[in-house]
Amino acid sequence: MFEKVLIANRGEIALRIHRACKEMGISTVAVHSTADADAMHVRLADEAVCIGPPASKDSYLNIQAILSAATITGADAIHPGYGFLSENANFAEMVEEHGFTFIGPTPEHIRQMGDKITAKRIAEETGMPIVPGSEGSVDTVEEALKIGEHFGYPVIVKATAGGGGKGMQLVRTAEDMEVNWKMARTEALAAFGNADVYIEKFLTHPRHIEIQVLCDTHGNAVHVGERDCSLQRRNQKVLEEAPSPALNEAQRNKIGETVADAMRKMKYRGVGTVEFLYENGEFFFIEMNTRLQVEHPISEMISGLDLAREQIRVASGAPLGMTQDDIKFNGHSIECRINAEDPENFMPCPGQITDYHAPGGLSVRVDSALYTGYKVPPHYDSMIAKLIVHGANRNECLMRLRRALGEYVIGGIKSSIPLHQKLLENQDFINGDYDIKWLEKFVGLED
Amino acid sequence: MFEKVLIANRGEIALRIHRACKEMGISTVAVHSTADADAMHVRLADEAVCIGPPASKDSYLNIQAILSAATITGADAIHPGYGFLSENANFAEMVEEHGFTFIGPTPEHIRQMGDKITAKRIAEETGMPIVPGSEGSVDTVEEALKIGEHFGYPVIVKATAGGGGKGMQLVRTAEDMEVNWKMARTEALAAFGNADVYIEKFLTHPRHIEIQVLCDTHGNAVHVGERDCSLQRRNQKVLEEAPSPALNEAQRNKIGETVADAMRKMKYRGVGTVEFLYENGEFFFIEMNTRLQVEHPISEMISGLDLAREQIRVASGAPLGMTQDDIKFNGHSIECRINAEDPENFMPCPGQITDYHAPGGLSVRVDSALYTGYKVPPHYDSMIAKLIVHGANRNECLMRLRRALGEYVIGGIKSSIPLHQKLLENQDFINGDYDIKWLEKFVGLED
Repeated sequence: MFEKVLIANRGEIALRIHRACKEMGISTVAVHSTADADAMHVRLADEAVCIGPPASKDSYLNIQAILSAATITGADAIHPGYGFLSENANFAEMVEEHGFTFIGPTPEHIRQMGDKITAKRIAEETGMPIVPGSEGSVDTVEEALKIGEHFGYPVIVKATAGGGGKGMQLVRTAEDMEVNWKMARTEALAAFGNADVYIEKFLTHPRHIEIQVLCDTHGNAVHVGERDCSLQRRNQKVLEEAPSPALNEAQRNKIGETVADAMRKMKYRGVGTVEFLYENGEFFFIEMNTRLQVEHPISEMISGLDLAREQIRVASGAPLGMTQDDIKFNGHSIECRINAEDPENFMPCPGQITDYHAPGGLSVRVDSALYTGYKVPPHYDSMIAKLIVHGANRNECLMRLRRALGEYVIGGIKSSIPLHQKLLENQDFINGDYDIKWLEKFVGLED
Repeated sequence: MFEKVLIANRGEIALRIHRACKEMGISTVAVHSTADADAMHVRLADEAVCIGPPASKDSYLNIQAILSAATITGADAIHPGYGFLSENANFAEMVEEHGFTFIGPTPEHIRQMGDKITAKRIAEETGMPIVPGSEGSVDTVEEALKIGEHFGYPVIVKATAGGGGKGMQLVRTAEDMEVNWKMARTEALAAFGNADVYIEKFLTHPRHIEIQVLCDTHGNAVHVGERDCSLQRRNQKVLEEAPSPALNEAQRNKIGETVADAMRKMKYRGVGTVEFLYENGEFFFIEMNTRLQVEHPISEMISGLDLAREQIRVASGAPLGMTQDDIKFNGHSIECRINAEDPENFMPCPGQITDYHAPGGLSVRVDSALYTGYKVPPHYDSMIAKLIVHGANRNECLMRLRRALGEYVIGGIKSSIPLHQKLLENQDFINGDYDIKWLEKFVGLED
């Protein structure tokens, strides 16, 4: 096992990793920008190294400074957290070249999953469900109609050379196909000088459901169930829950096993998340995140696993200490991402925390690096805390979340706590009846 | 289910009950002394009633004021917490006479278990193991020797009319019996005017192991495993753990089932704890606590049950929602009682909290009514917080506890956090190798 891990991140995830390390008897090295000299991960770490000025590109993205800090402090391994350098294949490569262990997948896997086209190809090759589409361009309306019938309407016609919504036409019924197919070709030709179009199945009200995986370097892979992350604003997740209100156990096991099997075929190592759109019982691959995710705690709450610990264990070469049968899901968990922002207009609100009091008690977990007197710097992501609760069932979880939000005091700045409280009073949300477009309507920001 | 519960207590347990109520959709009424007007349970409750001046006898023990508060606020039920009126049979009786539900056992059970002799008799009648002793007085040395051989040495000779250690002689071997038996009789005669003595088995290094029970009003009873509370200073528990490092699963199931069976025979209702001394595989009844206990959270952590919720549910007449087979124990949990006291000399240290920061993250629970700026009043018990952690096994639990204690900031007053940190470095404790006398030696206060 590692003796000393450098944590190449900040905020709550740096603290999360620090805690996992300390609980394994591993020393920690914090790195920080000048803006984060008083940050909690810096205060708690065994050693701390300043790696540059506030701007991320000069500090948390400063590969040379981070590698130097690891060398100076004699770290064995580097944990990248999420964001920043966590999915930078070059960084992973350089970490390994400098003789440190990168706590994450191989640079090759990061690179492959970082490229959308390669990722989709690998997903298909390893047996994961992808959005069905025509093979190559669709050159006649007859062919288009046949494909429409095959996938079921609605479908979407897209320019082969396209992007940015140009040359894209939604087709709701067979009757609309001819005119829309033609319109797409006309637009495509005008925009890209190439009239070729292809056709994909179109999802009207999908949910975002993702599968957590955990893999070792000995070919073993397990899944840790799903998370429903449909509640998003501008592609930023706001609240996540596990299990998904939309899935039953058979569906969970099936997609979970499909993904675990794909991981074994890929020889993937470490933790990862495969994201899908889900509609009417079907899953469609979006992308894979090759790191620990913000919302990993809800999977920990329902599985009893410590994913950060497991990630460090497998990175050290240890085999998975469990089989799929050992992983049992229990109850329900929800995470609220709490941002330093105005809950009305979503403007960031950095500043000094004059008063901080986290909720406590049974089955309430707070992952946050805030403390009274701490100054939330304006330079970084506005997420300042994660409130995670567990309950025997979804209703108990909602009740507990309401009371915990009611106890949470973050004084001195505005936070998104009121948004979560409002959400928890909404009947659609209470019923678990939402898709990826729902939250933007709810907050009145539908574009 | 109740609509409104009055919480006849203060501090962390008032908050614990408030939280359980809110999570069940029940309104709460806080009562408080003038010293507690700013207490967290008062701030968070839906309603609050001042019931008197700081001295407990004038407020938290003021039955008339509490019943008036319940009447004025229209509460359905009264939860007594622990301490104060929780084991006062007259209070329970008056609560019921005034038309409120007492969230606890019947006054009769409180009364029976509150009397040591009756409690021991009922324990024996319902099949619980008690400390074996002679039946009546032992009037000849031959009889004394026969009894000594029967129970096994050491045994203790005690004055029938006695108490306070007078007329009490420890007998380690058969050779010592005659002289000690005679000495006890001489002392007894001198102290009480009655030379009669009886003989009990003597435990040299017992542990304190207690069994949590949960019973409904329909004759159902389950046990929720044991807690090892051997770490005590002057009969005050300091740190508790579940499961006990001394028991195996078969022993746990056997004593648990014995106790659950006794509860069924007694027709006991609500939560309760049966305390035993344990030595060499044998249990010996001490007493039964007919209330929720301070250390109940560790049983919640390993069973997944919410005991405060279950207590309220069964008090409302609901049947147990589970059988013994539904209760599975998972991992290990430890609770540190954190007192406002000097860790060196155990003197209470009330005063203002200038800085408060509770530890967070995976499997860390804090039950505390502290907040920054709160003034710990000098009038009440010095326990100000409970830090409870869970781990997959005892070692993980200890590692997590160390890191959580290291994160805990309670500024402005002295607290017992350093005592727990010192304890966690001790090899005997790490090995789980301690008895009820161990802690007093550890803190250098062996009398």
